Amino acid sequence: MELAQPILNGDRLALARLLSRVENDTLEGRSALDALFPHTGRAHLIGVTGAPGTGKSSLVNQIALHFRKQGKRVAIVAVDPSSPFTGGAVLGDRVRMRDLAGDPGVFIRSMASRGSLGGLAAATAAVTQVFDAAGFDVILIETVGAGQSEVEIARLAHTTLVVEAPGLGDDIQAIKAGILEIADILVINKADRPGVESTERALKTMLELAHPVRKVFRHHGQVMELNGEDTPDTGLWIPPVQRTVATEGMGLPELLQAIERHVAHLRSSGDWARRERARLQAEFDLILREMLVARFLANLPPKNMESMLESMQNREISPREAVYRLINENKN
Amino acid sequence: MELAQPILNGDRLALARLLSRVENDTLEGRSALDALFPHTGRAHLIGVTGAPGTGKSSLVNQIALHFRKQGKRVAIVAVDPSSPFTGGAVLGDRVRMRDLAGDPGVFIRSMASRGSLGGLAAATAAVTQVFDAAGFDVILIETVGAGQSEVEIARLAHTTLVVEAPGLGDDIQAIKAGILEIADILVINKADRPGVESTERALKTMLELAHPVRKVFRHHGQVMELNGEDTPDTGLWIPPVQRTVATEGMGLPELLQAIERHVAHLRSSGDWARRERARLQAEFDLILREMLVARFLANLPPKNMESMLESMQNREISPREAVYRLINENKN
Repeated sequence: MELAQPILNGDRLALARLLSRVENDTLEGRSALDALFPHTGRAHLIGVTGAPGTGKSSLVNQIALHFRKQGKRVAIVAVDPSSPFTGGAVLGDRVRMRDLAGDPGVFIRSMASRGSLGGLAAATAAVTQVFDAAGFDVILIETVGAGQSEVEIARLAHTTLVVEAPGLGDDIQAIKAGILEIADILVINKADRPGVESTERALKTMLELAHPVRKVFRHHGQVMELNGEDTPDTGLWIPPVQRTVATEGMGLPELLQAIERHVAHLRSSGDWARRERARLQAEFDLILREMLVARFLANLPPKNMESMLESMQNREISPREAVYRLINENKN
Repeated sequence: MELAQPILNGDRLALARLLSRVENDTLEGRSALDALFPHTGRAHLIGVTGAPGTGKSSLVNQIALHFRKQGKRVAIVAVDPSSPFTGGAVLGDRVRMRDLAGDPGVFIRSMASRGSLGGLAAATAAVTQVFDAAGFDVILIETVGAGQSEVEIARLAHTTLVVEAPGLGDDIQAIKAGILEIADILVINKADRPGVESTERALKTMLELAHPVRKVFRHHGQVMELNGEDTPDTGLWIPPVQRTVATEGMGLPELLQAIERHVAHLRSSGDWARRERARLQAEFDLILREMLVARFLANLPPKNMESMLESMQNREISPREAVYRLINENKN
């Protein structure tokens, strides 16, 4: 509790220190997380993901500024899963620093990979919990890329924005198929660039595939655009497509409104609680996995593991047979 | 063994059937894998990864054709980790079909995500083992993207090609920092496009950062390019940068030579055995994890899990505390 109390009191230095401990998964970090847990569950977690070159960082920056104007406290967690070995630099920090530095209502944390994807997802979950307990109203989780990593991290968020930009290459469509299904709001940033219409058309076509409801409505000959606001009827959320030019603030008010509509939808439909539950379950699963393996390996004599590896390398025993044998020899 | 024997005899239909079983991780698939394991360890596994738009599929296609000319049997495993929900289509199949269809020395398998990244890596490992046992000399593992997923899958390969192309966006550099460290050979495909010089310059600068040896050599005022062939002196492998235009076959013979030099380096340095060992260890870890969790959950009454989730949602107990409590209540 000695580490947790200053966080609840709003001590920024203590917050920074605890974040490091939590990221590194130290014992103190873990017990502080347990102590803070009852104070979590209030923040709105917004994931922002998209390929490099879409201007995600500028967009996150602008969203943060808008929430600040509403008097909300904003945390930004910038996650870079593509840098597993270097623990390298995270995108967009310079952009951000210019506009947000010195604002006590904003806290920015950059995270590189923790060696494994599971580790990064767990660390990100833990960091958002600390911010949540510390009373931040909005937590923006920014991830770069469009792979499984982003999907794992998106599971943390209540609202997920997938950011696109015109003219990012020809076979980028294929990437979107998976990532589209985690999108609550689609953003076409850099919308002043040529090709914005075809990007929007492509996204809407893919949305129709991913969300059959939209298609049905168009089969009925309706011309109206099925955007987020039209969904209370069906109880379903159709991801709206919002155009922005983050560097000029264009489209930001509309995007913020879409985010607010999504929160209202989450609350009225019961999806907020469902996502919360799925999130807790996922976190539980991650920890269970780590703990079972750690317990098993702690009880395993290292030379058993060594000789087993030797046998595998000599093709005498397959990895699966090795696992079976070790589990049966070490009933712990 | 009834599933394994036809594979060893070169039965393509049996191979296709077994691949499905192995991908779906069925009991028959598992026992066939165990039976085939002693016959593995001979194939050269080549990973090919890179962002969308770099022309990976055409390149893989050309590499396969070149190995075919040498009389080698080639398997292609095309992995798309970005499509976790749809199990969607994989890039480049059309390109490939045109040149390789009907060649009995080639086998192509497309894989979408198996729900989790760990699952996909495990399934990919299993599929390559089947091809290895079936006597394919070269197995090309193609992955799309540049995130943690590719890194996980690259761990399977003996030789990893990272593919770039000129003019793919401005902040794509940041992505490369992590992915560069898994590259054994860097390919600039579409090298007839404008901007190829600056892409090559950027890659070489990043290589200097990742491989200090290269830098040292340049500090000594040497003008010569430190490419793969210069490395026997130091015992280190400096990833060469190869330009190609896959659609026209340009640069392919040079790329194939670089791949051969890398194999020679792996053999002479002992890295082949080290990578093999790391690969077996990683596979063992994956299976151990899955098996421990499965065993634990099988012994856990579902209502315990339900009420624990309830308590978490009411913020009475943190996920970590929940795991502790369940593990202590269920010593199995």
